[in-house]
Amino acid sequence: MPKPNLFYAQSGGVTSVINASACGVIETARKHRSQIGKVYAGLNGIVGALNENLIDTGKESAASIAALRATPAGAFGSCRYKLKSFEENQQEYERLMAVFRAHNIRYFLYNGGGDSQDTANKVSQLSQAMNFPISCIGIPKTVDNDLPITDTCPGFGSVAKYVAVSVREAGLDVASMCESSTKVFVMEVMGRHAGWIAGAAGLASEQQGDAPHIILFPEIAFNKEKFLKKVQSCVRKFGYCAIVVSEGANYGNGQFLADAGSKDAFGHVQLGGVAPFVANMIKEALGYKYHWAVADYLQRAARHIASATDVEQAYAVGQAAVEFALAGKDAVMPTIVRRPTKQYRWEIGEAKLSDVANREKMMPRSFISRDGFHITSGARDYFAPLIAGEDYPPYRNGLPRYARLKRVLERKKLKKWQAN
Amino acid sequence: MPKPNLFYAQSGGVTSVINASACGVIETARKHRSQIGKVYAGLNGIVGALNENLIDTGKESAASIAALRATPAGAFGSCRYKLKSFEENQQEYERLMAVFRAHNIRYFLYNGGGDSQDTANKVSQLSQAMNFPISCIGIPKTVDNDLPITDTCPGFGSVAKYVAVSVREAGLDVASMCESSTKVFVMEVMGRHAGWIAGAAGLASEQQGDAPHIILFPEIAFNKEKFLKKVQSCVRKFGYCAIVVSEGANYGNGQFLADAGSKDAFGHVQLGGVAPFVANMIKEALGYKYHWAVADYLQRAARHIASATDVEQAYAVGQAAVEFALAGKDAVMPTIVRRPTKQYRWEIGEAKLSDVANREKMMPRSFISRDGFHITSGARDYFAPLIAGEDYPPYRNGLPRYARLKRVLERKKLKKWQAN
Repeated sequence: MPKPNLFYAQSGGVTSVINASACGVIETARKHRSQIGKVYAGLNGIVGALNENLIDTGKESAASIAALRATPAGAFGSCRYKLKSFEENQQEYERLMAVFRAHNIRYFLYNGGGDSQDTANKVSQLSQAMNFPISCIGIPKTVDNDLPITDTCPGFGSVAKYVAVSVREAGLDVASMCESSTKVFVMEVMGRHAGWIAGAAGLASEQQGDAPHIILFPEIAFNKEKFLKKVQSCVRKFGYCAIVVSEGANYGNGQFLADAGSKDAFGHVQLGGVAPFVANMIKEALGYKYHWAVADYLQRAARHIASATDVEQAYAVGQAAVEFALAGKDAVMPTIVRRPTKQYRWEIGEAKLSDVANREKMMPRSFISRDGFHITSGARDYFAPLIAGEDYPPYRNGLPRYARLKRVLERKKLKKWQAN
Repeated sequence: MPKPNLFYAQSGGVTSVINASACGVIETARKHRSQIGKVYAGLNGIVGALNENLIDTGKESAASIAALRATPAGAFGSCRYKLKSFEENQQEYERLMAVFRAHNIRYFLYNGGGDSQDTANKVSQLSQAMNFPISCIGIPKTVDNDLPITDTCPGFGSVAKYVAVSVREAGLDVASMCESSTKVFVMEVMGRHAGWIAGAAGLASEQQGDAPHIILFPEIAFNKEKFLKKVQSCVRKFGYCAIVVSEGANYGNGQFLADAGSKDAFGHVQLGGVAPFVANMIKEALGYKYHWAVADYLQRAARHIASATDVEQAYAVGQAAVEFALAGKDAVMPTIVRRPTKQYRWEIGEAKLSDVANREKMMPRSFISRDGFHITSGARDYFAPLIAGEDYPPYRNGLPRYARLKRVLERKKLKKWQAN
C-alpha cells in the first residue's frame, strides 16, 4: 500500500509568518518519511485542490523550505474562497474528495482563520461519510487575533509589533515638528471587528505623553464630541496628538466611519480610508495641521520586523499539526496555551475544530481604558510578550532575501473541474 | 577669554538619521573640550535661537548622546521656519546675533535642507558684517535627496530602504492573494518635486514579475491611457500589479494628481492622498480589486530599518561639520563624495553654502526607463549602495529603545523676543 500523502493549503489574508507555519509543516513531514509520502501544497489554497493544482513540495530544496521561515505572505498562494455548505454545493465537496482520493491524500492541513477551520471540519465529516477518512487538522492563522480558545493567533504578534514600532517612530517625528508644523497624526490599522491590532499599538506609549495618545477601537462607539475634546486636550498638554484608528471604528450602530461601499468575496464590506476621514474631521473642527498614514498590507507583510515569539509559534503550530495528524487525530487545531507563570511561557494545546469554527474572539472590555481611548495594564500584560524578540530575515544588497519557490505541479489525474 | 560655544539646530522635516548627525556633532565636540565650550542645541530648531531656548547638551549623559545615533526624528525639536531676507526682516537677524553674542556662540551648525543652508549662509555674512564672526557650517539632511553637489543626503538612504523593503513585502502579499482577491496594490511615497524616493522603491524588483511593476514619477507627465494599459498588461502577465506612486505625481502642467479636485476612493471629497486616487481610477476603468497604502511619516521615521550606510554618513557629516568649524572654515557644508571605484566607497567633501542654497537636484532622466514607468540599471547602480547594510536599534520588551533627553535649557540672558 502506498504511503498516504499530505495536503497543506494557505487560506484567507496572508501574514508575515504563515510561511513559517508552512515551514514547520514541511520540515516536520520530511522527518517522517516512513509515514508520509508526498507533501502537496495547494496552489492558491483550497482552489488548488479543486483545480487539482497540487504543488509537489518535494521538488523544493531543504534550503528553500528553511527560507520559508523568514519569508512573508503565502508562498504557495492563498485565496479568499469559502466552501458553501454541503447542502448548497455538494458537487464542490465531492470534487475535493475525488482529488484527495486520486492522489491518496489522507492528511489535510488547512492554515487559516475561522472560516478555514470550518472548512477543515466539514472535510473531516465528509471524508468519514464517504468512507475515505482523512485526518483534518486546522492550523491557526490570522492577524486579527480573533480565533477562540487559542491564546493568540500566529500572525498577530508580528503585526502588533509593526504597528507599535511604527506609531512610536512616527510619534517621535510629530513631536519634533509640532511646534511649528504638524500637530495631529492619524495611523490607520487593520482589525475589522476587533481592536486587537489597534490595542497592541498602545504598547508604544510607556510614559505620560508618549504616542499614541488616542486609540479608536471597533468595540467603542465613536463619539465625535468626546473624541475632538480629547484631541484638543492632548495637543494642549503634549503639543501634539498621535492617534491610532482601527479600520473597524464605527458609530456603534453598525455603521463604519469609513465605508468604501464595496464588498469582498465573503460579502464583507471593503474598508479603508478611515485615517483621512478622521484627520479631516479634526482639521475642520480644530484647525490643526495633520498627517495620516494607512499601513494596509505593509503591516501584515512586514516580515522585516516580525516578532520572534510569533515566528516561533507559527512554526510550532505547523509542526504540531503534522504530529497531530500522525497521532491519528482529526478535526482538531493546535493552539497556543499561555502558562500561568510570571515570566511568559507557552505550550501547544489542542482545540476541536467545531469549537473554533465561525466564532470570533472579541477583545475584552477590560483591555480598554475607562474613557475608551487607550489600553489598560491588563492589556499590556497580554500584548507585551507577543511582540517580544526580533527575528530578522537574511539580507542581500540591502534588501531582505525572501524564498523563491519552484512550485512544480503534480501531474493531473482527473478531468478539468467545472464549478457549477 | 572664555572658550567659544557651539550652537547646533535641526531644521525642516526630520529623518530617521538626523539624530545620528547630532550624535556626530556632540560626540566630536566633546573630544575638543579645549577649543569648544558648551554645545547648545536649539529647542525646535532656529526658533530656539530666536527665543533663546538653548538646550545645554552638556547635561546629557554620554550614553544618551550615543543613543541618538539609533533614534529617529529630531531629539531637540525641529521647525518649519525660514528666515526672511535681511531686507525683509532685519530685526530677526539682529536678534539671532544678539543671542549668539550673549552666549558667546562662535560656531553655528545648521542641519537641514536647501532652505537651511541658505539661512546658514546668511548668518555667516551677517556675522562678518556685524563684526562678530561666526563659523557657519551646514549639515546636509533631507529624505528628498535633492541637495546639489553632495552625492546623496543623509536621511535618503534609509527612507529608500524602507520603501524598497515595504513594496517587496507588500508585493509578495498581493502575489499570494491575486488569484481570487486583490489584484492591484498602490503605495504612495514622499517626494513632492523629485522622484528619488519613488525610484529607490524600484530596487525591490530584481527579476521579471517582481514588485513594483509600475512607478509614477513627478518627472514624468502622467498619461492615464498609457498607465491603465500598463496596469492591465501587468495583471494579465503576472496576475497582479504593484504600483509605487510619488506624492508629486502630476499631469506635467503643474497639476498634481492628488490635487485634481476630485473625490477619493470612497466618494468623500479628496483629502489628499494620491494612492487612493490612483487605486480608484484603476477600479473604475478596469474593475480590479485594489488595496492602497500611504506610508507618510512612517517612511521617514523608520529607524528600525535604517540603512547602515546612511547612518554612517549621517554621523560622518555631523563629525565633519565640527572639524570644519575647528579648522576655521565658514559658509561650507560637508558633502558625501562617491569615489569612482567598482565597489562603493565614499568620503567627505566640501561645498560652499552659496552653491548649495536654494538649488534642487532633480533625478536625471537617464534614471527613468524609456516608457517612464520604472528605473534603469544606471539608477540601480546609484541607489543600491545607499540602502546597503542594516543598523538595528537596541530593543527592550519588543520595542526599539530610543533616546529620551533631558533637554535642560540654559538660563536666559536677554529679554523675551517679540517677532514683528
